[in-house]
This record gives sequence, C-alpha cells and structure tokens, in this order.
Amino acid sequence: MKINQFKKIFKSKKIDFALFYNIDFDKIEENMLYFSQYSGSGLLIIPSTKSPFMIAPKMEVTRAKKGLIKKVHTWNKEKKLFENTKHLLKKEGIKPKRIGIDENNFSINAFKELKKNFKGSKFIDISKDCLKLRETKTKEEIKIIRKAYQISNNILNSCLKNFKSFKTESDVKAFLEYEAKKQGCELAFPTIVASGKNAVKPHHDTEKSKLKKGFCVIDFGIRFKNYCTDITRTVYLGKPTEKEKEIYNFLLNVQKEAIKSIKISKNCSDLYKETKKRLEGYQKYFTHGLGHGVGIKIHELPNLTEKSKDKVQNNTLFTIEPGIYLKTMGIRIEDSILIYRNKPHIMTNIKKDFKNILN
Amino acid sequence: MKINQFKKIFKSKKIDFALFYNIDFDKIEENMLYFSQYSGSGLLIIPSTKSPFMIAPKMEVTRAKKGLIKKVHTWNKEKKLFENTKHLLKKEGIKPKRIGIDENNFSINAFKELKKNFKGSKFIDISKDCLKLRETKTKEEIKIIRKAYQISNNILNSCLKNFKSFKTESDVKAFLEYEAKKQGCELAFPTIVASGKNAVKPHHDTEKSKLKKGFCVIDFGIRFKNYCTDITRTVYLGKPTEKEKEIYNFLLNVQKEAIKSIKISKNCSDLYKETKKRLEGYQKYFTHGLGHGVGIKIHELPNLTEKSKDKVQNNTLFTIEPGIYLKTMGIRIEDSILIYRNKPHIMTNIKKDFKNILN
Repeated sequence: MKINQFKKIFKSKKIDFALFYNIDFDKIEENMLYFSQYSGSGLLIIPSTKSPFMIAPKMEVTRAKKGLIKKVHTWNKEKKLFENTKHLLKKEGIKPKRIGIDENNFSINAFKELKKNFKGSKFIDISKDCLKLRETKTKEEIKIIRKAYQISNNILNSCLKNFKSFKTESDVKAFLEYEAKKQGCELAFPTIVASGKNAVKPHHDTEKSKLKKGFCVIDFGIRFKNYCTDITRTVYLGKPTEKEKEIYNFLLNVQKEAIKSIKISKNCSDLYKETKKRLEGYQKYFTHGLGHGVGIKIHELPNLTEKSKDKVQNNTLFTIEPGIYLKTMGIRIEDSILIYRNKPHIMTNIKKDFKNILN
Repeated sequence: MKINQFKKIFKSKKIDFALFYNIDFDKIEENMLYFSQYSGSGLLIIPSTKSPFMIAPKMEVTRAKKGLIKKVHTWNKEKKLFENTKHLLKKEGIKPKRIGIDENNFSINAFKELKKNFKGSKFIDISKDCLKLRETKTKEEIKIIRKAYQISNNILNSCLKNFKSFKTESDVKAFLEYEAKKQGCELAFPTIVASGKNAVKPHHDTEKSKLKKGFCVIDFGIRFKNYCTDITRTVYLGKPTEKEKEIYNFLLNVQKEAIKSIKISKNCSDLYKETKKRLEGYQKYFTHGLGHGVGIKIHELPNLTEKSKDKVQNNTLFTIEPGIYLKTMGIRIEDSILIYRNKPHIMTNIKKDFKNILN
C-alpha cells in the first residue's frame, strides 16, 4: 500500500532505500506487512528509484509471492540475511548511503549486524513516518475495512443473540473466534470476555470459569485481509440494580457525546479531556485512553490520550471506548469510527442500549 | 520460573539487575512472560540481590499481580517508563552500574531512551543466557507441558475423527481452535491447514477455499498456561496413487529413524544431517530445519539445523518434523519430543500411519 506516497518521504530525507525485516515466526513486522501484505520471515527493500523487492527463506518464497511484491529473492542460507541483502543491492546497482529503518521495530542485535554489513552507511529513523503513513487510509483500505467490520458486526450480533447458551467466559470467546475462523479471518487480538469482578481488569485473560453475574465486557476484533477491527459491548447477566443500570446509561451517554463531538482537525487530546470531564465523579475510575487508531495493527495512530499531539483527520479509523472500572465491576463501551468525506461514521453497528441477559 | 538460576548468571557477568519490558499490546516479551507469567504491557526488574518487581500501567496492575511477581508498582504516567524505573530503583537502593538486557528484544529507540535515563551505566547483552535458561525445563514446567500435550492430542484426535464433516481448510482450522479456546487455551501460532497444492508452502495461510484432493497438512499447537505445543499430521483426501503412498511411507520412516537416533549429548546438527541423508533423492525438497525447541515461545532452543551448535540435553522439548515439498504436493510429519530422565519421550501420541479420508 501507498508505496509511491512513502517514496516522497525519501526525497526530503535523502534516503536511498528503506529496509524492513522479520525473522521471528511468531511476530509480525507491521511495515513489511503493510507494504507487501506478507507476514512471514524475510526482508523488504523499498528503493527510492527502483521497484521494491523481498528476500525470503526458500520455504517461504511461494507464500511471499502471493503478496503485493512479486519480486522475491531466495535467501541464500550460506550468508546471513543482511550480508545477502548487501550483495543483492550491489547487483541491482542501489547505493546504500542512507538507509531508512523503523527504529521501533529493529532490535539492538539486528542493528549491530546491519551496521557490520553496511559500514559507512547512515541510518535514518523513519518510525514516525511509517506510523503517519499508515494513519490515513486509501480507498482500497477503506473498502477492506468496511467489509471487515461487516463481518465482525455479524459475528458479535449472533453471539449476543446466542448468549444464553454460553456457560463460561471461554464459551463466549470460543464462539466468537470460531465464527471468525470459519470465515477465513484471523483475530486482531485474543478476545476478552470478562464477567463479574473479572471486568475490573480491562485486559482480563478470559477464564474457563463459569460466567459471573453482573456486567460482562466483551472486547472482540478480527483481522480480515490483514486489517483489524475493534469493538466492545458490555451486557448484564442476572438482575441489575437500579444503580447499575444508572451507571451503564451514564457511561453510554458519555460515549455517545464523545462520538458526537468528533470534528475534523480537532485535537485528539481535547476529545480525551472533554470525555474525562463528562465522567464527573467517575473520572478516576477511567484508567485508560479514550481510543486509538486501528489498521494493520490493532493499536495505531491517532492516540486519543491526554498528551496526544494527533488531530482528527479525514480517512482515519479510530476507537471511542470510555470505561468505568470500580472495585467489583467494570463497564466499557467501544465503537470504531471511520472519518470519511470529513465526517465520522460508526463502523460498529451493534445496539448498545442496556442489555440484560437473564438465564 | 528459574529466577534463582538466572541470578547465578548475574554473578559471572557482574550484573546489578536485568531489565525486560513490553509496551506493545499485541506483542509478547518472552522473558518477562517466562519470569512473571504476565504477558501485558509493563517492565520487569530482576535485581541480583533483592526480590524482583514490576511496573505496569494502572489499568494492568491487578492483572499483572495474578502472575508470579506480586510486587507491582503503578506506572506513573507523568513520567516515561524508564524514568519511572530509575526513580523506583533509587528508592529501592539498587545501583544501575551494570544492567542486563535482551538485545534481541530491545528496540533501537527504546535503547536510546534507556541510555538517556541511565547515563554512565553499562549494558550487558543477556539474550543468549535467556535462551539457554529457557531451553531446559523445570519439573514444574514439565508438568504443565505434559498437560498441554494431553489437551492438544485430544483435540487433534477428535479433529481427525470428524474430518469428513469439514468442507474447507478454514473449517478444519476453526474446529481445532474452537476446541482449544473452549478449554481456556490460547494458540501457539495460527493453525496451518494446507490441502492439495497449498501444502507446497510449509507456512500456507489457511484459506476459506474447499479442501483440495491430495495430501492435507495440519500443523497445530496450543498455548496452555503460557506453554506451547506443536504437532503436524498429514492426511490424504481422496484416492491416493501407489507413488503417493510410497512417498508418505518413505518420509514416515525417515521421521521415525530420526526419533530413534536421538541421544543425550548428540549434536543437533548431526540429527539434521543424518535425516537429510536418509531423504536420499528428496533431499532438495526438504526446505526447512529438522526441528526446534518449544517452550514459552513456539521457536526456542535447541535448533535442529545444519549449522546448529546445540546438543541434545536432558529436560528439553523439541520437534522432529521432516517434510517433502514437491511441485504440487507437500507432506510433513511432526512430533514433539521431551527428553526426560535422559531418554526421549514422544509427547504427540497421535497415529501417523498413512491415513486416507474418502469423502
């Protein structure tokens, strides 16, 4: 995606090429995935003037070619990865004077190895450029994102309809994830199902234990064609007190107000601060940010936090997810908002009125 | 796990404390997970003389305390994480002269930030020490690992029994993962189901497409109490030719021979080389290593590759997974082997004779 726009950054920074790599089977290097749509081991070179190419282990070459970059060299295992890269660059006539790397996604040891192979080269940190580039979405990305939310909305809706059949937190999680996998999707993150006092932890590790009475937070997202979705709904299991209903509706109102107040060019920090203010006496029980961008990673720009420097921009996708976490209960209501044609559009079209599930 | 053994390494390297951190919601820092059994955002300090402690964001403190480290400070968001750490260390009277870090799991940018806060400190790379420490398992770990394999064996067995009911690769994957999640487990990696020509790619991204006739590779692993399992079986869908059966049985024999030849103190590279030799004319179609250690990460020490320096040791867990990938078909047979009381034990007790599924 957006390789041409990315290359414009090269000019101002006088970069000869950008280099991204991943050698860890169970990790994803988000830039490589973004530009190549390939998530395996390997290395991606984006030169300023020539076309991009990849290097992948022999066993991954066919898989890598299924992505956007069709030129994939086989990693000659006689050489280390960066040594291999140096030789290929030489062959292609690409000078390694100034090399752009994402310093947030480059380990100290890999950097030592890189410097050993590219003596005399200058290394330019392009981590912020990559984040900014990924923040605004292209038409093509928006099409995928819309479809991704359609799928995850359907799944969560059918989960809520079937809720009475679930006995444990794991049952709920397993149902949601099964439906996603059946449709060929991956997960954006391990689903959170937190009932009763477990919901006090916003990132509770879902348990095999019986669903507890009280509020139950369900935080779920899929990964469709490499793009993430994110949504949270909180339902009530058993018989609520008036006070509990009141707190839920209070938070719901705050969440709706936050969405209403989204405007192009507005400071994300103001969105956070205004929401916090609206939480009145519950301010200190709101322990995380108001939201975050969503894309190829589940947490992207913009940040909707107190100290964020980000602004609301067109063609971005972010969450609005205030929460209240008391001593024995937790509530969070989260929607994902797409800013399209300069207006906010709620992508997570799932009812959020107080929902009582009586078993 | 093994904190006391870890501290012995400190002495020889004169380390005041080790520092591990993770600030990425969708990544795991394996050392922090290993020592604390907590996988979220935060930072872990293991001092040479005092007891270890963590720093976690306010929203994660309760969750972090559910792990092994009970002393968890709240990250004061007014300060950056390493600045916060510096103050806490000072309070505890721990000198930051020599700091051990895992340079494979420390980004360049984080390291810049760390150096800014700890001017005058020396940083010692302990990446290899951590890998070596995690390679051999304690009694406690072995107990968890045995249970983890029991669970995954049952799941895969019931998948193979139900195989006729699956229509797509995603159906198979969804079934396996659903069963894992129902039991409160996570996945060790996204399950691979590769049928027909898809099996040419050892790490094929499972598709929603109809199961193709021919060999179907199923590579599956769960994560139970943070420990991974790993197993691959290849079944045949439709009517095999004699030649296909022959290749399968040839590979099966090679795999069994490899397991038979495992001996304490043997070089892992020899295990690889002997197996490659046994593959005779198929050598060039075996495009990956013979196996890898399994633990808190899916790929750990030992490496069973041509250039490995590792040896077979007691209390280790590793895979034996030769494969043959031709132009239109792929076969892989993988078992996980626990070396216990100096003898190899197959943890993946699932039949591996040629299995024909006729629809």
